[in-house]
Amino acid sequence: MREVAIIGVGMNKWGELWEKSLRDIFVESALLAIEDAGVDHIDSMYAGCMTSGLFVGQEHLASLLSDYLGAGPIPAARVESACASGGLAVRMGFIDVASGMSDIVLVGGVEKMTDVSGDGATYALSTAADQEYEVYNGITFPGLYALMARSHMQKFGTTREQLAQVAVKNHENGFKNPLAQYPQKITIEEVINSIMVADPLTILDCSPITDGAACLILCPADMAKKISKKPPVKIIASGNATDTIALHSRSDFTILNATVKAAERAYKMANVTPENIDLAEVHDCFTIAEIMIIEDLGFVKKGEGGKATMSGMTALGGKKPINTSGGLKSKGHPVGATGVAQVVEIVHQLRGESGPRQVKNAKIGLTQNMGGSGGSAVVHIMQAM
Amino acid sequence: MREVAIIGVGMNKWGELWEKSLRDIFVESALLAIEDAGVDHIDSMYAGCMTSGLFVGQEHLASLLSDYLGAGPIPAARVESACASGGLAVRMGFIDVASGMSDIVLVGGVEKMTDVSGDGATYALSTAADQEYEVYNGITFPGLYALMARSHMQKFGTTREQLAQVAVKNHENGFKNPLAQYPQKITIEEVINSIMVADPLTILDCSPITDGAACLILCPADMAKKISKKPPVKIIASGNATDTIALHSRSDFTILNATVKAAERAYKMANVTPENIDLAEVHDCFTIAEIMIIEDLGFVKKGEGGKATMSGMTALGGKKPINTSGGLKSKGHPVGATGVAQVVEIVHQLRGESGPRQVKNAKIGLTQNMGGSGGSAVVHIMQAM
Repeated sequence: MREVAIIGVGMNKWGELWEKSLRDIFVESALLAIEDAGVDHIDSMYAGCMTSGLFVGQEHLASLLSDYLGAGPIPAARVESACASGGLAVRMGFIDVASGMSDIVLVGGVEKMTDVSGDGATYALSTAADQEYEVYNGITFPGLYALMARSHMQKFGTTREQLAQVAVKNHENGFKNPLAQYPQKITIEEVINSIMVADPLTILDCSPITDGAACLILCPADMAKKISKKPPVKIIASGNATDTIALHSRSDFTILNATVKAAERAYKMANVTPENIDLAEVHDCFTIAEIMIIEDLGFVKKGEGGKATMSGMTALGGKKPINTSGGLKSKGHPVGATGVAQVVEIVHQLRGESGPRQVKNAKIGLTQNMGGSGGSAVVHIMQAM
Repeated sequence: MREVAIIGVGMNKWGELWEKSLRDIFVESALLAIEDAGVDHIDSMYAGCMTSGLFVGQEHLASLLSDYLGAGPIPAARVESACASGGLAVRMGFIDVASGMSDIVLVGGVEKMTDVSGDGATYALSTAADQEYEVYNGITFPGLYALMARSHMQKFGTTREQLAQVAVKNHENGFKNPLAQYPQKITIEEVINSIMVADPLTILDCSPITDGAACLILCPADMAKKISKKPPVKIIASGNATDTIALHSRSDFTILNATVKAAERAYKMANVTPENIDLAEVHDCFTIAEIMIIEDLGFVKKGEGGKATMSGMTALGGKKPINTSGGLKSKGHPVGATGVAQVVEIVHQLRGESGPRQVKNAKIGLTQNMGGSGGSAVVHIMQAM
């Protein structure tokens, strides 16, 4: 396998982009990544998107996007694993370059979520759960994560304040990110007293509905040394795993097994341990998710994610900064774009160009992107070259 | 890159499978492929599906399918390129094995199309066209292909009878395929006099709405020699290309440029010419499509596809048998499954186990799978080992 590097990144300003179409925001981000890399062509393309069919009535997505980017007739594939679609697209691009099939690969993620009316977005997102056994019976994602939160609180004594602190920390980071959808600072009291969604989770425990895209340019590491305009970043591992899609099929609601397995595979491939990771972007779709994920990635012991968050360990300036971009919570969560945007943040950090949210001496970064209630997870580890 | 072989194939009986769910038909086919290969585990999985979101309200599909197959926590990805989703899944599996990331890979395609009511299927399929410029203005796929047919008739003198003969030939082949949805023989008169859909195309010029799945087991060619129960088949090339998604953006309606480019790439990679191909499965979603495709693959000169079909050249026993399985027309067209089922047919033919529809001395076979009105195409070339 060839070694693979990232030589360009691009991301548009995320939010409720009423005036732009899905194809517009993707092309905007793709052109930023191409400009950042300084390449004059692309050999193939991967687009991560969860459900453009339900959100905007458009499938055949990679063909549409390569057409509107003016990149046809390149090979193009759309990949989907619910909210982990972006991370999966990064993995496909990585494998394509590693295999020798393609040299310069565009990896993008996109979702246009605000073009549906009524409960259309809630329905579209619910298709990440088991349609026949979960959705049919009325459960939605805040409900599923609330079950995990209650379980974690009961088993480990995790508190309501610890959950809220995840949101407070991530908004503190997002306040420093000009591309974030909700860059406002918030307090623990504001989180706890905001509108109840699914007890114990209030609306400020939940990631928002967002329109957005993010793109990368990958190429072989050898080529990166020659052509890259900016310091290239090597992808030293890609781990992917699945779990039961339905929450009720699991023996323990407090462990995300797909994340555990994907991380194990990635650590083994990169030959590193959790201690070697300088910073990480993780899938904080709900506050409880970040607490469970930092445990399942091995950054803290199982059950101690809430305490660690409250201690400041995961804050900017802490021992293990998590979600310096603002995370899904503050930056926004256009589901198919999220996994790619996580990599964009790590690349900026490893290049040392993150300004007020820069992690000092960042050498190795990790991303963890997750589908549904944890039925799939993709972990990548990146290193400055 | 490692050489890649197919060591197992499986496909269920296609049709209107009211009593079965999407997950059931996928698992049924996957178990047949696993049994055929004789493997005791799978390292990763790719599932091609166009729009399970619109057809059955289920995304996060690869996670669901690996779960129901009992194969979790393996890495699993769903890939989509409209009706070329299956072919694209084969390509992703090929690249995964070629790269060295995975050894034993399950590639599947699936679509459950009959669970929607009213014009739900027509709407779901329309999302393969350009939503903003084509679908919004009311065009559907029979209309788009009717425009191509009229253009081809005007430019090259292709006749109504020649179009009909594609359907007649493919139903003749499907009559010999016990897994085909519509194995009935039909006549040119029956095709021409059947219900008009979009002039000049009648309902017997159109592929049907189908529930179905098909699966393959891939592994490195070296390993195949050691572990395969049946004669392995090598994938000697994978070509993928895109074109403008909207028909109106093209300068000529009689050429499918994505197919031309994908085939060029595949012939180059395999170091073969169209003359070396013993048989092919091509994307006859409408009769006119097969006529254009056999031209664009270089089997006949541009404009002579209709005449060649009428001459018997593409029939079983002809110089270049096309769609010995019955094609999309007679076998059925569960959109995401089609590209994988094409490979299943070629593997059976190269193993010499196709019974009454066996092509004598078949050594090299080709598959051509296409998305939408030709906005994407995937071509694979396979050779008996």
